[in-house]
Amino acid sequence: MGEEARALDMEEISDNTTRRNDVVHDLMVDLYPLSSYYFGSKEALRVKDEIISDRVIRLKSNYAAHGLRTCVEAVLLVELFKHPHVLLLQYRNSIFKLPGGRLRPGESDIEGLKRKLASKLSVNENVGVSGYEVGECIGMWWRPNFETLMYPFLPPNIKHPKECTKLFLVRLPVHQQFVVPKNFKLLAVPLCQLHENEKTYGPIMSQIPKLLSKFSFNMMEI
Amino acid sequence: MGEEARALDMEEISDNTTRRNDVVHDLMVDLYPLSSYYFGSKEALRVKDEIISDRVIRLKSNYAAHGLRTCVEAVLLVELFKHPHVLLLQYRNSIFKLPGGRLRPGESDIEGLKRKLASKLSVNENVGVSGYEVGECIGMWWRPNFETLMYPFLPPNIKHPKECTKLFLVRLPVHQQFVVPKNFKLLAVPLCQLHENEKTYGPIMSQIPKLLSKFSFNMMEI
Repeated sequence: MGEEARALDMEEISDNTTRRNDVVHDLMVDLYPLSSYYFGSKEALRVKDEIISDRVIRLKSNYAAHGLRTCVEAVLLVELFKHPHVLLLQYRNSIFKLPGGRLRPGESDIEGLKRKLASKLSVNENVGVSGYEVGECIGMWWRPNFETLMYPFLPPNIKHPKECTKLFLVRLPVHQQFVVPKNFKLLAVPLCQLHENEKTYGPIMSQIPKLLSKFSFNMMEI
Repeated sequence: MGEEARALDMEEISDNTTRRNDVVHDLMVDLYPLSSYYFGSKEALRVKDEIISDRVIRLKSNYAAHGLRTCVEAVLLVELFKHPHVLLLQYRNSIFKLPGGRLRPGESDIEGLKRKLASKLSVNENVGVSGYEVGECIGMWWRPNFETLMYPFLPPNIKHPKECTKLFLVRLPVHQQFVVPKNFKLLAVPLCQLHENEKTYGPIMSQIPKLLSKFSFNMMEI
């Protein structure tokens, strides 16, 4: 390889390396033991209990009023048995959800996610969750039409998707109190149990191990 | 939320935003049309044709000599019909591979990937591929033992994995010539065809749409 090409190549590598240092830093995630967190409960959270057709009607009217529905969800990780566990909200035994929810019109991803984390996991929506560090978006799913499945890409020829769900890695502080609505449980589910387990956790949560696969985890002892 | 808490929260948001600007920038990927690339061929590349038991013996002896086997693979994207396509090497009709291969002892991920890209897709290993921009690692799979499957996480109690495969997003320049070994074809495969298609593309390549899901794609016209 000629000197000039090598110089160009090296320059590109060093340029990438500076950005890579940011990225490499982000690829390490500190996980604190589940035992370092406290769990309390608060009044039940109202959950829309509707049949699919009612839900489609509601989504259609929301779409007409506000356009694309964007949901933001947090992937919160803790350490247990030296293995990463994801915190999931469990509702009525068989329904699992990531903490998060729908953005309000004009709300940014981070603002919305912090609001939802506060409403789902702390005393109330106004209590800041300053200890949480909202990291990068690790995945995005699209719903082309109101009824259909969600896809990790915009299917060809789909110009106006109806819903977008974004997953964010959220780094937890070493200690945190979670205050969970009485009609929910907060569970720590191991990556190895989520993996390929679409039947129990659905098409998006069962993919979290792959979305996290690029990260290396520091099992912190306190 | 008290003034102080709000200030803390805002400070944290702005701190994240600066890092986020780097990350947001990386979340946009320019895709150039397949038609802007040229394809040539070169002498065939020797492919190890061995039965599984021979392969396990070879991997065991390599592991004894060099420890963890690390492979790096490139996810190269082009635009076709306004939809992202991944460039895959096809061997003997039914075998698909990402361009890449095994790192040499002491070689960095980027150096190794560029060497492999040059050997698989350009005139020879010494012709730099300076136009390629090796971006972030988008996924990592581990092989706990010599025979077993690969997992997108280190299974619990596995201290000494035998192989690690890392996928990198590599951004292509607007023009590039690909020179492909005669015994391979270079195909542009749409994300929608890779999606959930483990039978044809295997357990890792079929997950690429999910690993790329956080990115937004600019379909560049030239």
